[in-house]
Amino acid sequence: MEALRQNLRRAVKAHMAQDPAHDIAHLDRVWANALRISRAEDNPNLRVLLAASYLHDLVNLPKNAPNRTQASQLAATAAAPILQELAFDAVEIAKTQHAIAAHSFSAGIPPQTLEARILRDADRLDALGAIGIARCFSVSGSLNRALYDPEDPFATARALDDQAYALDHWPIKLLHLPRDMLTSTGHAIADQRMAVMQAYITALADEMDMPVPDNWSN
Amino acid sequence: MEALRQNLRRAVKAHMAQDPAHDIAHLDRVWANALRISRAEDNPNLRVLLAASYLHDLVNLPKNAPNRTQASQLAATAAAPILQELAFDAVEIAKTQHAIAAHSFSAGIPPQTLEARILRDADRLDALGAIGIARCFSVSGSLNRALYDPEDPFATARALDDQAYALDHWPIKLLHLPRDMLTSTGHAIADQRMAVMQAYITALADEMDMPVPDNWSN
Repeated sequence: MEALRQNLRRAVKAHMAQDPAHDIAHLDRVWANALRISRAEDNPNLRVLLAASYLHDLVNLPKNAPNRTQASQLAATAAAPILQELAFDAVEIAKTQHAIAAHSFSAGIPPQTLEARILRDADRLDALGAIGIARCFSVSGSLNRALYDPEDPFATARALDDQAYALDHWPIKLLHLPRDMLTSTGHAIADQRMAVMQAYITALADEMDMPVPDNWSN
Repeated sequence: MEALRQNLRRAVKAHMAQDPAHDIAHLDRVWANALRISRAEDNPNLRVLLAASYLHDLVNLPKNAPNRTQASQLAATAAAPILQELAFDAVEIAKTQHAIAAHSFSAGIPPQTLEARILRDADRLDALGAIGIARCFSVSGSLNRALYDPEDPFATARALDDQAYALDHWPIKLLHLPRDMLTSTGHAIADQRMAVMQAYITALADEMDMPVPDNWSN
C-alpha cells in the first residue's frame, strides 16, 4: 500500500495547482481520515479508497467557476488513465471513479458504496477542527475577504454573507457538517473536531469581549 | 472619547487598503487591547492612545516593500494633519506620533513613553490568541503560502521558512512575542492568548497523529 501511495502522490503532484487548501497535504490528511474510518467499517477496498483519496481533487475549479459542480465528475474521468497506469482493473477503476464523483456534495451524486461514503466523510472532516480553522482563514485570505464584520462579528442582526466574511462560513456551512456525516466513525471524529472549533470560537469571542450567540453551537 | 473614536474611524477608513489583517477591525481590537492595558497603568493619556491606536497603520506597506521598516514613521507623518483637524495640540500630536513611529519593532525606535509602550503591546497582542491564529492563516492564504510542510509540519529536521509555510511563523515570531511585552498587563494577556495557541497546536498535531515538539512551547 505504501508503494501505491507514493506512486499516487507522484502522479497527482504533476496535476496540482498552488492552492494551500487543496494541496498534497490535504490529500495526505483525507487518506489518513479515510484510514481511521475504515478501521471501524466492514472491509472497505483500501486500494480503491487510497486511490480515491489521492485523486478526488484532480480537477479543482475556482470557487466562482460556472461548471464547478462538475469538478468531481471531471476528476473521476481524469483519474482513469492514472489508475490504468497503476494496474487497477476495470472494477476497481469504476469503484474509484464513483467515490471520486460522489465525494462532492454539490455534484448531487449519492454515494452508493462504502468507499464513496468513507471518502465523503474523510474529505469533510478536513474542513473541521484545527485544520478546518486554518483552511477557512487561508481561503478567505486568498480571496481577500475580511475575517469578520467589525460592526457585527457573529451576525446577530444581519444576513450571513460568507463572500464577505470568513467567520460567516461557520454557521452557513461548517457547523452543519457533523450532522451530515455518513459513517458512525466519521460522525464521532466530526464531533471531536467540532469541540475544537467551539473552544476556538469561545476564545475569539472572549478576545472581542462578546458572548457567542446560541446558534453558533452546532 | 466615543465621538473622537468615531471621528478617527471615519478619518482612517478613507486611507485603508483592503487587507483583512490590517483593516478597521484590527484597529478596533488594538484600541480595545490598549484600553485593557491602560486600566492597570499609571494614568496614560487616553486621547493620545486612542488616536495612536487608530492611526498606527495609516501607512501599511506590502510585506516585501524595500522601505517597509519606515512604514511606522511614514504613518506618524501622515497622522499629523488628521490630528490637527481633530484639534489635537502640538504636545499631543508629538506624543501620538512617537507612539505610532515606535510601535513597529522593525523601525528600531525604542518606545520612550507609557503610551508608546502600551500601543506596542496592544498591537502585538493582536498577533496572538484566536485572532492571531486567524490573521496568521489569512495572511498566508493571501500570499498563497502552504499551511505547513507536508513532509515535516513542525520542522523537526529542516530550517524554518515562514515564506513557504504559515505554521513556521509560529516558532520564528509568534511564540516569542509574550516574552517581549513591555507592560505587565500586556504580558499577562499575552500568556492567556498563548494558552489558546498551545491548545490549538495540540489539536492540530493530534489531527495529524503527531506529537508537538518541545520547542513549540513558548
